[in-house]
Amino acid sequence: MSTKPDTDIYIALVHHPVLSKKGEVICSAVTNLDIHDIARAARTYGVKGYYIVTTLTDQKVLVDKIVSHWTHGHGGDVNPDRKKALQLVGIVDSVAGAVSRIRDIGQKDVTVVATTAKMGQADTSFSEMKAEISQGGACLILLGTAWGLCDEVISSSDRVLEPLQGSSDYNHLSVRSAASIILDRLLSDG
Amino acid sequence: MSTKPDTDIYIALVHHPVLSKKGEVICSAVTNLDIHDIARAARTYGVKGYYIVTTLTDQKVLVDKIVSHWTHGHGGDVNPDRKKALQLVGIVDSVAGAVSRIRDIGQKDVTVVATTAKMGQADTSFSEMKAEISQGGACLILLGTAWGLCDEVISSSDRVLEPLQGSSDYNHLSVRSAASIILDRLLSDG
Repeated sequence: MSTKPDTDIYIALVHHPVLSKKGEVICSAVTNLDIHDIARAARTYGVKGYYIVTTLTDQKVLVDKIVSHWTHGHGGDVNPDRKKALQLVGIVDSVAGAVSRIRDIGQKDVTVVATTAKMGQADTSFSEMKAEISQGGACLILLGTAWGLCDEVISSSDRVLEPLQGSSDYNHLSVRSAASIILDRLLSDG
Repeated sequence: MSTKPDTDIYIALVHHPVLSKKGEVICSAVTNLDIHDIARAARTYGVKGYYIVTTLTDQKVLVDKIVSHWTHGHGGDVNPDRKKALQLVGIVDSVAGAVSRIRDIGQKDVTVVATTAKMGQADTSFSEMKAEISQGGACLILLGTAWGLCDEVISSSDRVLEPLQGSSDYNHLSVRSAASIILDRLLSDG
């Protein structure tokens, strides 16, 4: 059994502002399995909250409908484990909105950690971040959908975590896979 | 940049024989994103082949249609990175069928490694498995869908890898998340 980190970890899945394939700033569509898979990984690794960031009203309604089915509806009765995971999910307009929610819980210092698949943007290794997590406070890890977080989000974050690297020059993991591996690297024992 | 392991790694996503929620042996349905996410993670970590195991003809036709769209159809033209990942996918009837395919490639010794989310079934830790991977030969990692690999598959495997453990007592990761974390733990550098 692993020990819990001293820092409370939160994650945000950002749909706006992110980059399109052409490098334009867009609001990407929510993917149902992103909500489920990342909530389950978050619950597994003791994450305190998982925010879906989108500016689109119809997408917020959709996320709320999905989450409610599992937290207050029939889904949760049939699958209580899924309920425990989906209970972590909150819906916010922006990264600032997620930080604000975490402050509302009573956390004063929130370190915002951007993630990226691109080389050359990072300033913090996994081992450095893991060490920092033992210091206390709260930490919000940002995961970008589509072609990743836009420069404005990267540059306004407190840390930019090094890209995941496998054993090849291919780095096109799904955001679900990347989120799972990042949580395992930062929060698992050993 | 990580170095490639000396052992060629293959993975199989098993839809039969796996357990239902009630513990019955079933053939589970194929999930589109399992094919994509695990193929992308496999390609990232230098895996040599990714086998979808199912006994159902209509499911094999479905998998072939999905994979062909990305490897020979329009999908691959639009997204060559996805093509590189999906090119790893093969379709087989059974775990023995996957082993047979690997032997056909010219690999003599294939170590079959089962994975499980249950405590008490494992005989090999991640660090032991990682050390073994540096020894050469071929290794086939089995991932169970639904409620996991049935006892017959577990007991006939050469190794049973320890369950993933986060920092809580909750262990209900999606198979997509589990596959990604297992590949990262076994095949990433460090």
